[in-house]
Order: sequence, then structure tokens, then C-alpha cells
Amino acid sequence: MKKRILLITTGGTIASSLRQEGQGLTPTVNGAGLEALLGPLTLEYQITVRDILSLDSSNIQPEEWRLIARNVAAAFAQKEYDGIVITHGTDTMAYTASILSFMLRHPPIPVVLTGSQLPIIHPLTDAVENLRTALAMASSGTRGVFVAFNRRVILGTRAVKVRTTGFDAFESVNAPYAAMVDGTGLRLNPAAIPPVTGDFFLEDRLCSNVFLLKLTPGLDPMVFEMLGKMQYRGIVIEAFGLGGLHFIRRDLVAKLHAMAQLGITVVVCSQCLYERSDFSIYEAGVKALEQGVLQGFDMTTEAAVTKLMWILGQTNDPEQIRERFSQSIFGEIMV
Amino acid sequence: MKKRILLITTGGTIASSLRQEGQGLTPTVNGAGLEALLGPLTLEYQITVRDILSLDSSNIQPEEWRLIARNVAAAFAQKEYDGIVITHGTDTMAYTASILSFMLRHPPIPVVLTGSQLPIIHPLTDAVENLRTALAMASSGTRGVFVAFNRRVILGTRAVKVRTTGFDAFESVNAPYAAMVDGTGLRLNPAAIPPVTGDFFLEDRLCSNVFLLKLTPGLDPMVFEMLGKMQYRGIVIEAFGLGGLHFIRRDLVAKLHAMAQLGITVVVCSQCLYERSDFSIYEAGVKALEQGVLQGFDMTTEAAVTKLMWILGQTNDPEQIRERFSQSIFGEIMV
Repeated sequence: MKKRILLITTGGTIASSLRQEGQGLTPTVNGAGLEALLGPLTLEYQITVRDILSLDSSNIQPEEWRLIARNVAAAFAQKEYDGIVITHGTDTMAYTASILSFMLRHPPIPVVLTGSQLPIIHPLTDAVENLRTALAMASSGTRGVFVAFNRRVILGTRAVKVRTTGFDAFESVNAPYAAMVDGTGLRLNPAAIPPVTGDFFLEDRLCSNVFLLKLTPGLDPMVFEMLGKMQYRGIVIEAFGLGGLHFIRRDLVAKLHAMAQLGITVVVCSQCLYERSDFSIYEAGVKALEQGVLQGFDMTTEAAVTKLMWILGQTNDPEQIRERFSQSIFGEIMV
Repeated sequence: MKKRILLITTGGTIASSLRQEGQGLTPTVNGAGLEALLGPLTLEYQITVRDILSLDSSNIQPEEWRLIARNVAAAFAQKEYDGIVITHGTDTMAYTASILSFMLRHPPIPVVLTGSQLPIIHPLTDAVENLRTALAMASSGTRGVFVAFNRRVILGTRAVKVRTTGFDAFESVNAPYAAMVDGTGLRLNPAAIPPVTGDFFLEDRLCSNVFLLKLTPGLDPMVFEMLGKMQYRGIVIEAFGLGGLHFIRRDLVAKLHAMAQLGITVVVCSQCLYERSDFSIYEAGVKALEQGVLQGFDMTTEAAVTKLMWILGQTNDPEQIRERFSQSIFGEIMV
């Protein structure tokens, strides 16, 4: 019995062709086109195609996140599929994978995002290999949201695009890979995959008024006042090292207190790609914690930003925000 | 004849001790203290100590960059040293190393920044190993600014702190290591080190009104107007992938044009850690280039931000800014 896979397409390089000299790549190949280009692989699965968007992923924004989540939820309700593959541009795939991991609570079947660095019509494309891995993961019965790329599978909340052109574009940051492909086929790593129990529900409200502030030395604290005026409800700070902020001459730490007074939630994580942030080690961090900031710990920036958007879409209560932010939804934070 | 090394200290974890329970680490050990803790290594070199700062590097800001640069320039003028080692906190060391690479034009002797992840007084400290490498590099006669860490030497413009706690905290991003330590001693990689010719001069003016904007999906374009009002003169955008920006519903590309009209210089680089950005490949990027933005290409974010601050400290002329930004000063951009 062939596995029944729903292939949802959203655009991206994988579906791109060179439209016109000097204009750059834009998505032009639809799902039927992708399927036709998959060749014999299509004989292994019973694939249904649904084209929902045709966008370069730089243009995938919160509205598209909700559209994708609702399409996936509708497919779950049909109960006709063993798994779902979503093709998506690589540029913001990590953000989409993170927010879907939060919006799709207890997915009943695998949801696997993939894409490619070269269009599927390119003779050297990585698209077919990536779809191979995605289709296998989508057929594995493993509940959850994942990214499949370069013969590896990453938890949706742990993927980061770290290379602009390499086929090894994504890494699983601060977490082991969920699966890898080798001569034994798809090798799942069960210890790396949080168990999903309970019935599915869609929780797709979000607040997009969250600003990501990557610190640079000497950053003017007035930026916080300006963000307050712009009615941001959340700020994720990529601080230095374990979570350092400057407070001499330009006192960022005092501004954190002012933000808390305005009811703005501040999360501090690290601008270092790897390893966890921890404010309790340095004086500047200890001061920040005293101002009521939340810690991002080992979360990726993509997960921290989307998680805060998602939580603020559901509650204004500081205690609830704090509690939900510190709880792991799908492996984004080591408890 | 022992090599004569000037050891300039600025604080950082390397010089820290636990001041008081619950307060976090702060720098307390001065240069004489560091030297005393180096043990037999001090017999190999003729070390002169100069304490100029005692700060957690989260508090090292443009004012400190100039102070450090002027101290180094003064030491050059003395002509009494074969090399200079600067101890510095790891959190912002990559920024300091980048700006010193620009401010110190044609340094006559090696200038090597180092630090550690554990204080030098800790029994497991990495400080002594890092100082070993830094002292050897400072004695090598290689002109330029470098970071020595974990038995590797990185061009000052190529260092990025990628790990919050690992001893392998720094990587040489998009460039080979300048040197490594193994059983043969310090193994220089001459091909990785740009040749420095000409006389030294100090070019330490800078404009700190440069904002780093790391994009998130759906970022409100109004942020640009707000930055314009705050009188920022430069904006470095960490865009998606090769340099993507959203322009549907929320048109960031149109704002780039508005920024150019206001005389604000915009540089676009990638939020991917590795590999180069290139706007000419995707539609969104092509649109951005048409608005007159500068490309960061393979520069690190730390190098792009400090280079723009440095150039804007010297000129307001758009053509000169463009020209200087695209020229490599010390290996920060592949020509």
C-alpha cells in the first residue's frame, strides 16, 4: 500500500525558473510541474498536489503562516493522508517551520517542509534529493513539524539557515538531527523527537508586533523608546555572548525596566549561533534578569521570535506569557 | 633575544573573578595579575603590561575602541615592541578586532586580541592556552590585527563569536585561518593573510550612528522612518538568505529608496552566518540594488557594521562611501 502524501506548494527557489534576464529568479513551477519533474519517485507514493502560494519566501509573512497552517489543518481533517510535504523557499523556511510547530498543536501525521538551493529544473538541482528525504519522513508516521534538507531531518523549531548557497544550508542548532539518510534508508533518531500525544488543535492567532533587536556596541537606548511608541508588544534582543548588554554611558539595562513598565515583553537570547544564553553568569545579565526579562536559553532566534508572536496572540497576562514562554512546545527549549 | 611584547589589558572574563555571590562575574585581575598567573611562559618573552580598561566587553563601545586604538598607536610610536597582545572580553571581541583592523592602517607589528571563556584563575581556564597562541602570533612579525583563540589565529575582520561557552568560541567566517598551533608550533598560513605595506597611520574617526537591522518576516517598514528620525546615518540590514527583503503588503524595498533620498547609507548582508550575500539572483534583491543599497558580500556582520561606522566617520560623499566600502582594508571582503 503506497503512502498517501499531500504536497502543498508555496513557491521558493525549488519552483523557480529564470523569468527574464536581469530580473532574478521568481517562482513559476506549480505542484503538478514539481511532480512531473520528480520522475520515478512519484511511483513510490500516492501524491496529491495543492498549490496554495507562489512566493519567494522573503515575502512569506505572518498572513502566509496562518494560511499555510489552516491548509494543513484542513488536510488533517480530511484524514486521507499519511503525511504532508510543504515546499517553501529556504530564506524564511526556519521561521515558517518554527511558527507551524507552535500553531499546529499535536499534529496527527508528519508535516515536513523542504525546498532547494537550485531550482528543480536545474540539471544540478538538490530539489529531488530533498524531496526524497521529505517524502520518506512524511511517510514515517512521526508526529510533528520537521525540515528535511540535504539528507537530514531537523525539528521545525531547531532549523536555522546558516549558509546562503551550500546544499548543507540548514543546521539543527543546539539539538540532534531528528533523522538522517544513509545506506539503511531513513534513520530516525527517536531520542531527538519530542513525543506528541493528545488530539490535534489549531492555535493560529499571533501578534506580529514583535521586534528583533540585534545589539551592536554603543547601541543608543533611545531605540527602545521608539519601539515603545511604535506599539511593539514584544522585543527579542540578540545580546552579546551569554546575554550581555551595555549599561555604561548608554544604559540598556535601565530601558528594560522601562519596557516592562509599558507592558512590553522582552526576551534576551544570544547573537552567537550556537549554545545557550544564560544571564545569571555576568553582572550585566544579572541586572537584566532583575528587570523581568525572559531568557531565550537555547532557543534559536527564529523560534524565540515566532514563539513570542504566537504567545502574545493569545494572552496579555505577564504571568501567562512568562509561563508559556518557558515551556517547550516541540523541542524548542531544553527543559 | 626574547621578543618584546606589550600586553594591553581591557578586562573581560579572562581577568574576572567571582566578586560576590549572585552578582555575576566582573573583571578584577589586572595585567600584573595575568602575568603572574602565566607561570613559566613569562620567561619566554619580555612582557610589558599596560592596563587601560577593566570592563566586561559588553560595555566596550566606540569610545573604548578609540581609546584602545590610540594606545596601540602610541605603542607603535615607541618602537620598543615586537608585538602587542590585547586581552579583551569575548562578547564583543569580534567587533573590536574588526574596527581596529580599519583604524590601525598598516600596523608595523602584529596586534593580537585574545581572551578566554573561563577566568585565568579557574583551574580549567583556557586563558593560558589562548595567551600562548597570542604571544606566539605577536612574536611572528606578521603585520596586521588578529584574534587568537583555541589554538587558532583569525584575521581581525573575519572573527565571529559563534559559541557562548565552548572553548572553540570563535570561527574564521568565509576565510581560512591565518595560523594554527600544532606539533610544529605556530603554523602560519601566508595565503590567508593580506600583505601589509606602507607606513602606519591612525584613522580613528567614526560615526556610531549606524543601526543593525536583522529582518524578521513581516517587519514593519515604518521602522525605517523611525530610524531616519533618530538621525541614523547608516543602516546595515541582515536580510534573508542571499539578501531577500519582503516587498508584498509591507514594502521594505520602497523604503530603501526613501533612505537613499535622506542620505542614509544602507548596506545589505545576510543573516546566514556563512557564505556570501548576492542580491543579483532573486527578484527582491535586484529591486534592492536598484535603490542604491551597498552589498555586504562575504563580510561578517561585525565587519560590515564597524566598517560603515568607520567610513561614515570620514566622509559624507555617497560615491566615496560606496568606493571605500567595496575595497578590502584587511581581508574583510574577497575582491
